[in-house]
Formats: sequence, structure tokens, C-alpha cells
Amino acid sequence: MKRPRVVIAGAGFGGLTCARALRYVPVDVLLIDRNNYHLFTPLLYQVASALLDPGEIARPVRQLIRPLRNADFRQAFITGLNLDARQLLTDHGPIGYDYLVLASGAQSDYFGNESLAERTLGLKDLDEGLAVRNQILSQFEASRWVDEAEERRALLTFVVVGGGPTGVEMAGAASELIRLVLRKDYRDLDINEARVVLIEAAPYVLGAFVPSLRQAALRSLQRKGIEVMLGAKVEAVAASGVKLAGGQEINTRTVIWTAGVKASALAQAAGVPLARQSRIKVEPSLQVREHPEVFAIGDVAGASDGGGSLPMLIPVAMQEGRYVAKSIRDTLADRAPRPFRYKDPGIMATIGRNSAVAQLGRVHLSGFPGWVFWLVVHLVNVISFRSRLIVLVNWAWEYIFYDRPIRLIVRAGP
Amino acid sequence: MKRPRVVIAGAGFGGLTCARALRYVPVDVLLIDRNNYHLFTPLLYQVASALLDPGEIARPVRQLIRPLRNADFRQAFITGLNLDARQLLTDHGPIGYDYLVLASGAQSDYFGNESLAERTLGLKDLDEGLAVRNQILSQFEASRWVDEAEERRALLTFVVVGGGPTGVEMAGAASELIRLVLRKDYRDLDINEARVVLIEAAPYVLGAFVPSLRQAALRSLQRKGIEVMLGAKVEAVAASGVKLAGGQEINTRTVIWTAGVKASALAQAAGVPLARQSRIKVEPSLQVREHPEVFAIGDVAGASDGGGSLPMLIPVAMQEGRYVAKSIRDTLADRAPRPFRYKDPGIMATIGRNSAVAQLGRVHLSGFPGWVFWLVVHLVNVISFRSRLIVLVNWAWEYIFYDRPIRLIVRAGP
Repeated sequence: MKRPRVVIAGAGFGGLTCARALRYVPVDVLLIDRNNYHLFTPLLYQVASALLDPGEIARPVRQLIRPLRNADFRQAFITGLNLDARQLLTDHGPIGYDYLVLASGAQSDYFGNESLAERTLGLKDLDEGLAVRNQILSQFEASRWVDEAEERRALLTFVVVGGGPTGVEMAGAASELIRLVLRKDYRDLDINEARVVLIEAAPYVLGAFVPSLRQAALRSLQRKGIEVMLGAKVEAVAASGVKLAGGQEINTRTVIWTAGVKASALAQAAGVPLARQSRIKVEPSLQVREHPEVFAIGDVAGASDGGGSLPMLIPVAMQEGRYVAKSIRDTLADRAPRPFRYKDPGIMATIGRNSAVAQLGRVHLSGFPGWVFWLVVHLVNVISFRSRLIVLVNWAWEYIFYDRPIRLIVRAGP
Repeated sequence: MKRPRVVIAGAGFGGLTCARALRYVPVDVLLIDRNNYHLFTPLLYQVASALLDPGEIARPVRQLIRPLRNADFRQAFITGLNLDARQLLTDHGPIGYDYLVLASGAQSDYFGNESLAERTLGLKDLDEGLAVRNQILSQFEASRWVDEAEERRALLTFVVVGGGPTGVEMAGAASELIRLVLRKDYRDLDINEARVVLIEAAPYVLGAFVPSLRQAALRSLQRKGIEVMLGAKVEAVAASGVKLAGGQEINTRTVIWTAGVKASALAQAAGVPLARQSRIKVEPSLQVREHPEVFAIGDVAGASDGGGSLPMLIPVAMQEGRYVAKSIRDTLADRAPRPFRYKDPGIMATIGRNSAVAQLGRVHLSGFPGWVFWLVVHLVNVISFRSRLIVLVNWAWEYIFYDRPIRLIVRAGP
């Protein structure tokens, strides 16, 4: 008898965890992703800030699924879904499924503002991380040719929009790259001409954290020389810079957008009911309504846990991936699956060297203890033993020598 | 009194060595390069074959010249030369000099054959190395969607043109990537469908070596499953594949060109007399005729040592760089410089795992001893202590686990 085919759309944390959890379930698993690698996204900002190389935070999907005898991988762009024919549509043609797990993640949301989409850099994927790195370093090189101070200041102003963990981590890393490393590279640089500006619409950064940790993060950002603008809303981005809602303008050539995020395009293309942030509406069992053979997990899914929808976090995606694998196993064994329940392991964010905040239930860490905790958790979770070794060498190297070794402006060919 | 300004065009092995040797000479040094990094080119094929990350073989020029108090760097495209006005022309405007050192290296030469220029991949710069890596890995992914065996074979045929050290090393590395690593990634792959073909116009590979070492290299290539075609001349490259002079065709989507090399475009733009391979004609003192304030070194220079012109090798460039620095120092001290003499330290090339050839005067090494020698020399010469550490981890990892960890198809943004 032919085994049921489980197609998983997306090899991020949700999809990969689901494939792994299906290891001993009598199904054939096919993972599909537009990239041939799984990305350890929590450290993407370290690629963007010239500390790590891509190979340290990305692993080939095929390598990761080698131990899974029932899993295969195909690289393809997913273009849509034919629910009636039970086919996932890709640029290489349709792929039939018995069970489908939608795990295609999230993308930047510009809220329909064209100028944001065109003139800002995202920080969701590896090529975007490299583009941010190229951009920051190129601005410093370009600034050396400019005699006019005003223009030089604009080149050396780096704006990060969004005070969530990604924005805070990127701003912190950019500031340290500039103040601790590039300062030594550019002997004739007036460090006062270089600015890192963090713009957040709310009256605080890190809104997901308790007020005391938000405050700690804010103070830490300011101590690292970052100009934090709270209650500030970006209205438009032009070639000359950022225009805020109040009319204020910031002259800059570099705007990194981390303020909006929505489900990946597949959610809309799927033709199923959507929740907030274009996320796919799911039953408590993570199934799509009227299509029990289709599940949605992670950022692309609008799963709720009692109140609002669950946040776009890696632990959510991984727990949902594991849950769906169990549900498929139970369904095959004619057992009814129980509803998904999220177990919150806590949240954290780092501001840089010696400073992070972590909120683990009632335990709140900030400053150096938070940072040590952050380090250990991230190092342990880096994708492979080899990567851990090399990331450790790089982190130790940076910590001791105040160096970010990957300061290379490299553009890859086609 | 203002110190004379030495402008060095190119931060490769020649230019960087020259800048370092000018450290204690009373001049101001300005290094110019189109990239912000110095590249350890001997290991570029290891980036192309998914073993190393760019950050392991490239270092920011600014970091390398930090210890040199009299040196600065600017990133620019060099567009030409105004010898009368003593200006180097760049995309950021002209740069005046008192002494000029042309060290802009070499580029691929397609001998005027348009189809070669358009349809082959080079292996001279970091972005080309990444493009080769992307190409090889993409072909394997694409082949999984193809049912037709003929078409799949074409996708999985990788042609390297040129049997010099670059071509031999690239072919060897590509073959090991496929046979030792990708074979495990693609469970349904028929390894007989994957071919690595090395095409060389001469009746032997590694023409710079003695016949016994050429033979050893050839046998080693064949043992690694590479199809070596000797006395074969590429006539044209089309979308469908390579056409040889005799009429034979090889169906392939991937042609890596290492068979022709000539001086960088600056040599022609300089408006000075040229030697073979468009290299700048120089006096025995490496000065450009009638322009004693202009020197040319390395691949861009057609220096001769008695007989023909010196080969395009790193030791030549480095010795010339050091020599020119001394010449400038002597000139400033009113001492007449002596002519340049090249001290040949020997040549080597590796075919891959456990196999290399080295020709050190009368000492000839091949096989495992040659490989150990190659390893030590290259590891010692990698650009920084940190890189050495990480390259060592990667090499050991590959050697033990038969793994090439950087199998990532990554395209960098603008």
C-alpha cells in the first residue's frame, strides 16, 4: 500500500520540526522551500552587522533531513494552492498531497506604503541580511569621498524602523559595529557624524516585555549611543531620507524596516479565510476550516490560544510543527487529535555586548546576566556542532578584540 | 615639508605587500581597490566548491593596513590614467600622485570570443566564486524536477576549461563535492549522470610543471572521476553546451573558464606600451618607460627575467611589491635602484583530498606528501590568525566527515 504523502511548504523552524517529528510516522514527507537552506533567523542581524558569515547560521535542508529516511526535499517557489485537487502549486508544476502543512513563514509588511517597500531594506532572509551589511559598509566607504559635511552625515545616518526584538538587536549591533570597529578602520572619521536612529511608533521599545525590561532595554540602547525616537511614525521614505508623521525629516540613505510583518504571500494565494496580519485562520487543531487535510503552523498561521492570535515566534512554530506531526500520526491511527496548546518558554532580546533582556515567566533578567543567558541559549541552538564551534570562535574573537571580521562588501553573481 | 604621495592601484598581493614595505618610508600611501577586501585567491575554488565561507579567505583592506600609520584606503573603480597630470582616474574623480604603483591584477581573457565571455563563469573574484557555487548547487536542485535523462545529464555536467592550477583545483574540488557530499544529499541521484569534464588545449595538464608531476596530476584527476580531455580546444559555448574545435559537443549548462587570463583593463586604459597578455611593458626596474614615477607589478606588469615575462603568480607580485617599495625609498635617498630579480620559491597545485603536486627546485612532491606540504603552506599563509583557526576547523571537518558545509544558494542584494 502506498504511504500517505505529507507535503510541508517551508523549511523554517515550523516545517523542519514537523518533518523531524514525522520521522517514525508511516508517511512520505516532502519539504519544499524557495531556498536550499534552513536559516537560524535569530542571528541574521549578526550577518547584517558583519560578525558572522552566512555558513554559520544556515544549513542545507538536505543535510538536516539526511537522518530522516522518509523525508525528501525540493527547491521551488510556491505560487499557490489548489485545495480541491489537493495540489500545492509551484514554479516547477503542481505537487499532489494527502496532507499539507503550510509553514511558509512571514514577510515584511509595508501597509500599502509604496515608498517603504521600495526604499527600505528588510531583514527576513539571508540575502537581505547580506544586503544590509553591504549597504552599511558601502556608506562608510562612500562617505570618505564627500567633502560636504551635511551629505556625509546623511550617508552615515542609519535608521532602523521598529522597536521589536529585530529592530533593537539590529540597532544595537549597528551601533557597536560603528563605535567599536569601523571607528578604528576610519582614522579620519568624526564619530559624531555617524548616527544610529531607532524609530518606534509606540511610547516604548520591546512592547512584548514587562515595563521594567522595556525600560532597561531603552537605557541600554541609549548608553550604546543609539538615538531612540519613541511615539514616532514613519510617513514616507524618499531618496533624501525619512519623513515622520509630525513633519520631522531625517536625512539618511539607509532605512532598515522591521516595523511591519505579515504572513507570507502563500496565505493570500491559498484562497482560505485569513485572520490579522494576513495569517491563515485555523481551527484549534491548526487545521484549515473545511480542509482537515491542510494544516497551517508558525508565522503563516493565525492560531489563537484563548485570547488573541499567538505571536510570530520560533517556539510557537516549533511546538505547532510537533503538534501537527502528532495529529497526523493520530489521524492515521484513527485517534482524534486534541487541540493545540502553546507552552510559553519566555522571550528575550539582546541589545549587544553585555546587555540583553529575558522574561521567563516570573523571572526577569537584564544587563549582563540577561546577556549570558541569551548567549548560552543561542549558542546551544545554533544549527550544528560545527557551526557552534565557529560561532563560538567568532563571538569570543569579537568579545576580546572588539572586532567584526566579516566586513566585506560582496555581491554574488546570478 | 609635504611627504610624497604613493598611490597604489590594487590591494591584491602585490599592492598590499608594497604598502606594507613602505611602512617606514617617509611617504603617504593611498591604496585604491574596487573591493573593500583583500582576497586570498589560492583558496577561492574552496568557496566555489562549498567548503569555505567568504569571510575565511577575505579580509577588509582597512583592517590589514591598520598597523601602517602612513597608509590609507579608498574604494573606487579605476577608470584610467593621466600620466602627464600625474593623476589616477577613478569613478570618484582623479587622484594625484607623486609615485604610482599599478597593481590591478588580471582578468579572464576570452580571446575575443563573445560566446565565451557571455556564457562561462570566471573564477577570479569573490563574487565569481559565489556565482560558481550557486550555479553548481542550483543545477543539482533543478535536476530533481527533470524526468528526461538526457536533459538531467546536461544539468549535471560541469565543464572546467583550462588545465592550469586553477582549472585542476576547481575540477578536483567539484568532483569531490559531488562524489563525497552531494551524493549523500540526493538519495535518488544516479551518480553516473553527474560528470566533471576538464578541457585543456595542450596535450598535458599543469604545463608549468615537469612531465612526471603533470602525469601524477593527470592520474590523480582521473582517479577522482574527472574526464580529462587533452588537446581539446573550445570553439564556442552555446545555451546547450560546449562545442569543441573537432566538432564534438558536450551538453552542459555550466562552463567554468580558467583557460585565458590577461592583465586588468587598467593596463589598456593607461595608454602605455603593452607586452603579451596586455601586460604593461616595464623596465628591469619595473618602471614604465619615460615615466620613472610609475611602476607596474604583479599580473598587470609584463616584467621579464632574462627570457620571457614572469608568470602571473603571487610570489612574483609580492617580491615585486617589496622591490618597488625599496626602489621608492632608494630614490628618495638619492640612491640608484638595482634591477628586479625574481627568486623562484617553487610552484604547487592540489587536486583534492590527499593529492597535490609541488615543484620546489629539484624537489618534486606528489600524492599525499605533496598534499600535506600544500596544506601547511596554505594554512600558514591564510590572511589572519582567526581565519587560520576557522579554515582549520573547516578543513578538519571536511576531512573527517566528508562534508562541505557551505552548500548554500545565496544571492546577495544590491
